[in-house]
Amino acid sequence: MSGYPDLTAIRSAHRLIAPYIHRTPVLTSENLDHLTGVSLFFKCENFQKAGAFKSRGATHAVFSASAGQLHNGVCTHSSGNHAAALSRAAALRDIPAYIVMPENSSRVKVEAVVHYGGIITFCRPTLVSREQTLEKVREKTGAIEIHPYNDPVIIAGQATAAKELIEDTDHLDVIIAPVGGGGLLSGTALSTHYLSPGTRVIAAEPAGASDAFRSFRDGTLHPSVEPETIADGLLTSLGSVTFPIIRDHVDAIVLASEGSIIRAMKLIWERMKIIVEPSAAVPFAAILEGLEELRGSRVGIILSGGNLDLDRLPWITGS
Amino acid sequence: MSGYPDLTAIRSAHRLIAPYIHRTPVLTSENLDHLTGVSLFFKCENFQKAGAFKSRGATHAVFSASAGQLHNGVCTHSSGNHAAALSRAAALRDIPAYIVMPENSSRVKVEAVVHYGGIITFCRPTLVSREQTLEKVREKTGAIEIHPYNDPVIIAGQATAAKELIEDTDHLDVIIAPVGGGGLLSGTALSTHYLSPGTRVIAAEPAGASDAFRSFRDGTLHPSVEPETIADGLLTSLGSVTFPIIRDHVDAIVLASEGSIIRAMKLIWERMKIIVEPSAAVPFAAILEGLEELRGSRVGIILSGGNLDLDRLPWITGS
Repeated sequence: MSGYPDLTAIRSAHRLIAPYIHRTPVLTSENLDHLTGVSLFFKCENFQKAGAFKSRGATHAVFSASAGQLHNGVCTHSSGNHAAALSRAAALRDIPAYIVMPENSSRVKVEAVVHYGGIITFCRPTLVSREQTLEKVREKTGAIEIHPYNDPVIIAGQATAAKELIEDTDHLDVIIAPVGGGGLLSGTALSTHYLSPGTRVIAAEPAGASDAFRSFRDGTLHPSVEPETIADGLLTSLGSVTFPIIRDHVDAIVLASEGSIIRAMKLIWERMKIIVEPSAAVPFAAILEGLEELRGSRVGIILSGGNLDLDRLPWITGS
Repeated sequence: MSGYPDLTAIRSAHRLIAPYIHRTPVLTSENLDHLTGVSLFFKCENFQKAGAFKSRGATHAVFSASAGQLHNGVCTHSSGNHAAALSRAAALRDIPAYIVMPENSSRVKVEAVVHYGGIITFCRPTLVSREQTLEKVREKTGAIEIHPYNDPVIIAGQATAAKELIEDTDHLDVIIAPVGGGGLLSGTALSTHYLSPGTRVIAAEPAGASDAFRSFRDGTLHPSVEPETIADGLLTSLGSVTFPIIRDHVDAIVLASEGSIIRAMKLIWERMKIIVEPSAAVPFAAILEGLEELRGSRVGIILSGGNLDLDRLPWITGS
């Protein structure tokens, strides 16, 4: 697949992965609607296989590759949800997944990869070490690399979340997705562009990791430098494939403070009785912080995942 | 309504309350099935209005009473979910709800009552003080008392949870509900008896509040004396209405330790990405502790509610 995934590519991705992923529910909350003055539709990718939307893209990448390509397995470097999702998808095709993880990855994320049978190589927690270690793993194993976001095949997979959200709701005025590397966001923007062109797409990003906001504003790709946010899924930079799609098809990128992200996450837990990880709370945090123009609108929010260490919650000091 | 609610009474309760409650989803978890060797069907009353099954009975009591009976409002004593559910139901009929709460009730429970417009009178945290204070409130206001469980009208309302669970699943071998005062359990036993007589009904109770276990074993009603458990919804004793139904229609009562309850609650949060309160985790805790005979069976579990103080989690020391 080259260039932007088109609608045919997204539909084909959806058919291919449907047997292996959940069609996750869209939940509403009278309580949060009342609090914000917005009609909210939450697409619950926290209930997705392996606990995040990442299963869509990873499963698409693994199942759209040929047996020959997969002969020596797949590999990636990731400290997070992509690692677990790729391990799971590889196990479904009975091939090995080699995962390079920084040695400071959270226990929960490491356990998830182990649970799905991924083979871990630890490295130092720097991008250089991650890339060098992955290169060594690739040379040694002959596995093909599955990038977490900067790949049209991955983007077509992630696009199926917004496709389902659009199919399962009446007209939405806006869809908001969080942005890290931009795989989910670019897929969301494309599905919305093809299937619901009257719907605006807004991205929400932590103020402490505002590279996408700045890249979008300046029209040039800024790397993510020393990001600091609790939203650990959103630390990465946009890529050469995701940035142009975002530049062309996203209407706005807004920022959310750490305090709002924590407040949003706790409100979702408390009022909706569902577990979302900090990254998934960023769109709702942006609504809490302002976005006055959304009052009275119908707004879809992609809750990107639900994986976090339940022993360490940001609102409990010392945990 | 006198004696046991019959099937007509339960169906009528369901029709009456349907516009005001959620038909909550039944969720499954491949992960927890794999862990236990049991096919589990979780009836998610944590997603119910006001966060617990209590909305079913309270709404039924309020909406089946006449305007004359409700002229001066409703009252109850409760430190928990019944208080919020009754306040909400009363607000829907535009009548006052007078709630007597122990002065040591959790902040979260007090806030929920205030949120739904309940009028609180605080009392000392003893049964005597609760009953005396309620008597005074009743004399002063003329409100009718809505008991949290020992009332056929309440039981018919709570019975609708198991009715939906049975309607929304293929044959279940067993249904497990937690037991405190026995409103949910007796309703569950009746719906199962009428609608799925081949299904066994098992109750799960904290070992630290084992009055129902002992009453069931001895065939005589033992009060709950100084119960000690994190499952704060299950501290009460069976009543004169609930005990005979349970004696006649429940197959077994099993106990769960505090450690298992906490482990069960955390597993449900972590693997299913949903928030349940400690009381709701007791049936799954009982499965984790043993119940070897359930291996390979299809088991329905009623997750009774999802209200708790997110600032104080039992697995985080010092919180």
